[in-house]
Amino acid sequence: MPLSPRQTHLLDLIERPADLRALSRGSLATLAEEMRHALLEQVEATGGHLAANLGVVELTLALHRVFDTPYDRLVWDVGHQTYLHKMLTGRRAWMSQLRQHGGPAGFTRRAESEYDPFGAGHSSTSVSAALGMALAAEQKGEDRHAVAIIGDGALTAGQAFEALNHAGDRQANLLVIVNDNEMSISANVGALNQHLTRLRSNPMIERFRHSGEEMLAQAGPLGELLGSTRAGLRDGMRHLLGTSSLFEELGFRYFGPIDGHDLDTLLDTLGNLREQRGPRLLHVVTQKGRGLAPAERDPVGFHGVGRNGVSRAMTPSTDHQPKSAAPPTWTEVAAGRLEHHAEQDERVVAITPAMVEGSGLKGFAARFPERLFDVGIAEQHAVTLAGGLATEGMRPVVAIYSTFLQRAWDQVIHDIALQDLPVTFLVDRAGLVGPDGPTHAGSFDLSLGMSVPNLAVAVPADAHDLREAIDWALVHDGPCLVRYPRDRCPDDLGGQPLDKAATSPRLLRRSEAQTPRRVLLIGIGAMVERLIPISETLDTTLVNLRWARPLAIAPLAELAAEHDAVVTVEEGSRIGGVGSELLLALAEHGVNLPGLRLGIEDRFIEHGSREECLADSGLDSRSIAASIAAFIGKPDKVSAT
Amino acid sequence: MPLSPRQTHLLDLIERPADLRALSRGSLATLAEEMRHALLEQVEATGGHLAANLGVVELTLALHRVFDTPYDRLVWDVGHQTYLHKMLTGRRAWMSQLRQHGGPAGFTRRAESEYDPFGAGHSSTSVSAALGMALAAEQKGEDRHAVAIIGDGALTAGQAFEALNHAGDRQANLLVIVNDNEMSISANVGALNQHLTRLRSNPMIERFRHSGEEMLAQAGPLGELLGSTRAGLRDGMRHLLGTSSLFEELGFRYFGPIDGHDLDTLLDTLGNLREQRGPRLLHVVTQKGRGLAPAERDPVGFHGVGRNGVSRAMTPSTDHQPKSAAPPTWTEVAAGRLEHHAEQDERVVAITPAMVEGSGLKGFAARFPERLFDVGIAEQHAVTLAGGLATEGMRPVVAIYSTFLQRAWDQVIHDIALQDLPVTFLVDRAGLVGPDGPTHAGSFDLSLGMSVPNLAVAVPADAHDLREAIDWALVHDGPCLVRYPRDRCPDDLGGQPLDKAATSPRLLRRSEAQTPRRVLLIGIGAMVERLIPISETLDTTLVNLRWARPLAIAPLAELAAEHDAVVTVEEGSRIGGVGSELLLALAEHGVNLPGLRLGIEDRFIEHGSREECLADSGLDSRSIAASIAAFIGKPDKVSAT
Repeated sequence: MPLSPRQTHLLDLIERPADLRALSRGSLATLAEEMRHALLEQVEATGGHLAANLGVVELTLALHRVFDTPYDRLVWDVGHQTYLHKMLTGRRAWMSQLRQHGGPAGFTRRAESEYDPFGAGHSSTSVSAALGMALAAEQKGEDRHAVAIIGDGALTAGQAFEALNHAGDRQANLLVIVNDNEMSISANVGALNQHLTRLRSNPMIERFRHSGEEMLAQAGPLGELLGSTRAGLRDGMRHLLGTSSLFEELGFRYFGPIDGHDLDTLLDTLGNLREQRGPRLLHVVTQKGRGLAPAERDPVGFHGVGRNGVSRAMTPSTDHQPKSAAPPTWTEVAAGRLEHHAEQDERVVAITPAMVEGSGLKGFAARFPERLFDVGIAEQHAVTLAGGLATEGMRPVVAIYSTFLQRAWDQVIHDIALQDLPVTFLVDRAGLVGPDGPTHAGSFDLSLGMSVPNLAVAVPADAHDLREAIDWALVHDGPCLVRYPRDRCPDDLGGQPLDKAATSPRLLRRSEAQTPRRVLLIGIGAMVERLIPISETLDTTLVNLRWARPLAIAPLAELAAEHDAVVTVEEGSRIGGVGSELLLALAEHGVNLPGLRLGIEDRFIEHGSREECLADSGLDSRSIAASIAAFIGKPDKVSAT
Repeated sequence: MPLSPRQTHLLDLIERPADLRALSRGSLATLAEEMRHALLEQVEATGGHLAANLGVVELTLALHRVFDTPYDRLVWDVGHQTYLHKMLTGRRAWMSQLRQHGGPAGFTRRAESEYDPFGAGHSSTSVSAALGMALAAEQKGEDRHAVAIIGDGALTAGQAFEALNHAGDRQANLLVIVNDNEMSISANVGALNQHLTRLRSNPMIERFRHSGEEMLAQAGPLGELLGSTRAGLRDGMRHLLGTSSLFEELGFRYFGPIDGHDLDTLLDTLGNLREQRGPRLLHVVTQKGRGLAPAERDPVGFHGVGRNGVSRAMTPSTDHQPKSAAPPTWTEVAAGRLEHHAEQDERVVAITPAMVEGSGLKGFAARFPERLFDVGIAEQHAVTLAGGLATEGMRPVVAIYSTFLQRAWDQVIHDIALQDLPVTFLVDRAGLVGPDGPTHAGSFDLSLGMSVPNLAVAVPADAHDLREAIDWALVHDGPCLVRYPRDRCPDDLGGQPLDKAATSPRLLRRSEAQTPRRVLLIGIGAMVERLIPISETLDTTLVNLRWARPLAIAPLAELAAEHDAVVTVEEGSRIGGVGSELLLALAEHGVNLPGLRLGIEDRFIEHGSREECLADSGLDSRSIAASIAAFIGKPDKVSAT
């Protein structure tokens, strides 16, 4: 069902938040409706983070109405809920290119707007950053407000606690808004969440919930749903001074909970809080997916949607998620193998920091619920917890995205590698991730991992490698990291092992060229697949490395000695990566050939499609071929015979 | 005043905790006295962490008496308070070699004893690890206890919160003992500490404190002090059920506070808690330095002491800390330069994660108290807070140890480098740290830093470089890391800049050798000083690199082209370090010479003296000279002319 077009007369007037502050208060509810409609239209066109943004329509409007942005600082945690914020701060038209190359980022970004005082992407940084702004204002004698808006899920990360602990102690002039929608991406876990639930279990909030459920029951087409957001819930909702809360123990004045969809309450409460100073925390209860019935019912499914995702959702269908004939993703293959092992071996347990869905663990969760530990957004704890489990003879597997493993790198070194504990890391989203951009790129796991003693590092090139790597990791008596990208996974690229080791590289092709033009091309991980046609065109030898640590240097040196140059290609930082170590290790092994190492350049790669990101860093097929051709001094398209 | 010898009849009987459990309860107070005396004698002989251990004499005894170790798991946070634990678990004689090469580690260590179920060194990991053990016991159907003993300071780190949040939610069978001595290394900060203070402010606890102060006032020689530990404080102290606490909000049953020096109360309370299941938290109030008057008065000064530190402390003297004529430490030079800039520029602020003393910031704290932010043990928050301050035009300087910066590496990437914010990191204790061993080694800051875009990395070789690096960092419009070791700092090693850039390397010596024996030796950081005599003996050219990023590749390549081989030496991971990048960058610049990169080997280096650690990794002067000589194919001692 296509979205019905709708006029947005008020929203059309808003070039910047100052315009919003010039409107009459009576017209704001209509503006909120228009914003919600514009959001749906935009996400229909561009895809993106839908449910979280639907939940903050009123909150975004109220914040820009009450606070004097950009002089006052709004720091949005994670930043994926800022589409409306961007809409109100001069980026509405540009949002049609959201998360596309050259378009606005899916998160806040300092380079984009003075209304984005701090960039985000990873969660739980907002309180620290806003506190820094508050302390700077104190130093400079400026009476500006610093406001952090943080979700209940993000509060489970230790950094948020560290920042609250510091802010409460300093009695800093900081307002923290807890946007409590009862979930991060998955449903939340943790005792803190239970604490928030207790705070929410106020009779007046309960009344709101009941009305909300009635509304849901009646929910029909989009228009009605949009209309319902201004419905008369506000009678039941008033600014309630909270009773004892954990936040008060940390030195904050606690206010709330209030209904985050009741614009009047939001405006009144924020207005009152603006007149106060010191550490204040406002607990706002919102509903992810608010105003779009399918998203309200399934906010996890609507966390992020593709283009036309809104209208597809509005169309009743028994088959709106058709089974794809495409090859499985790396995530699926890894999760499948993990389940296979869990079936065979009771010691296998899985740990995820709030990424059950993203890491493909729904099947595992259904089959082995008591052996899956979802620790919430708490990467540090996830890793050391795995260490504790490993000391007792379990075989813990931490399923984590490359970019989030950075949060726990000290724990990988200090708790796991130093003690040589058998913990397996399934590192998903390694390499460039596309639309999520540089905050989420998995550019560093290889350069980080290469220098950690005791750590094995697998760089599978296909499903066959991936399964073998997991098999190996689960019997290996030490830590192992297995990394793979967000992509489809080829089944088996074939090739001959260079020697008998389980971690041996595979030879995929032998160059027929004559010396001095014989090139050894070593592919690392998912890059191998795209090197196959290049190796044919340029007549190079091609090896699938398979393991970065241990590095099979003896057979590789023997092979390299038959060549005149070595080229390595990896989807990870060029500096300090696998290729760097490989070239140096070959030289130390007596094979000092001209080398070319291709990888992610020494700069942050902007968002775009995954292929655009790869191209931006010279890792698309055309660029790789051109680089190799230039290196070996022959034209790109001429095959050597 | 030398320590008076004393018999330890009971302690002599204890080979393992089971022996302790066989003693009559009535004799335990005497055992505690003997343990305290043995501790003082041992630290007098070996040096070590004194104050923290004096605070846990009774607690250690009570834990091993009540719990069935090693079947029950005791996980000590940080692990520097485990001298008594080691004494009771078969390592008493060995403790005479504490922190020496081949002796016991200063922390817990799995390889040392089955009574050390989890190694430590960095703080705040114990709850995660013990929870892992508890969950494993649950999986395996074993009714063992998992006990984490964590200081109040370590609770400020986010990871501890993450773990408590998870444990409370899971209702895991876990006992957490908060060893509340009101300080980490420095005095504690943070709202959590205020919360603990409120919990402590119980009339009965206050009575204990008052008595304690009276005792202090009367405190005389050691014998009396030791006697006082069993004095009649226990009347006032009983197991008090706590009222509402933050821990209860997180799902724990809270018990306490109890007097951690009242053995009867400890035994009774722990005995009761052993009979319970689920997440329980016991708040134990202890006194750092307990039983040694000078250490009670100055627990920061007695955090760690050298050999004879106990008797020195007992000797009244107006001059027991004589001013040294030795050159200043890197820490002192860096702190001095920071104060110089703070004087000139109001935008300069300093941030430390609970390391005011260690990072040399006492002077800064005295002169600019309002511009020093001690955030507690909270490295992640420290870094992002600096980011927030930087966005507002401040010039934040994060003073941090290399090993602890690992805790915040994601924040360095995501919040600082990605946004190219002008934050300066003064990275102390870089390289091998000696007696603290592998948990505290700063082996990875260079391999981590080399691959992060936008990040500048200074590797000063002398005080002159260090001051210039800080000057440069504080005007540079982006992030900068300045790293230096725990050592004395040479003043100025001289040399000629290779070009006019402020970040230019310096040429210290030119080889007079004839090709093909001409070697370019590139020293990185504090390694340069020890390369000077080596370069003379082996007649190599010697360059002080000074900056790892930006790498002055053009002038270095020009110089290298006059040579036949290149050798790099750094006190950081050999893999992925500065030398690796330098050799590859030279090759990519057209100078593909045989290269030798010396650095910390691909394994964790055990504790010992700093020189022993360097030797263990081939980085002492003799090993370096031998490696270079072997590489260039001439005998070690023969100078080339």
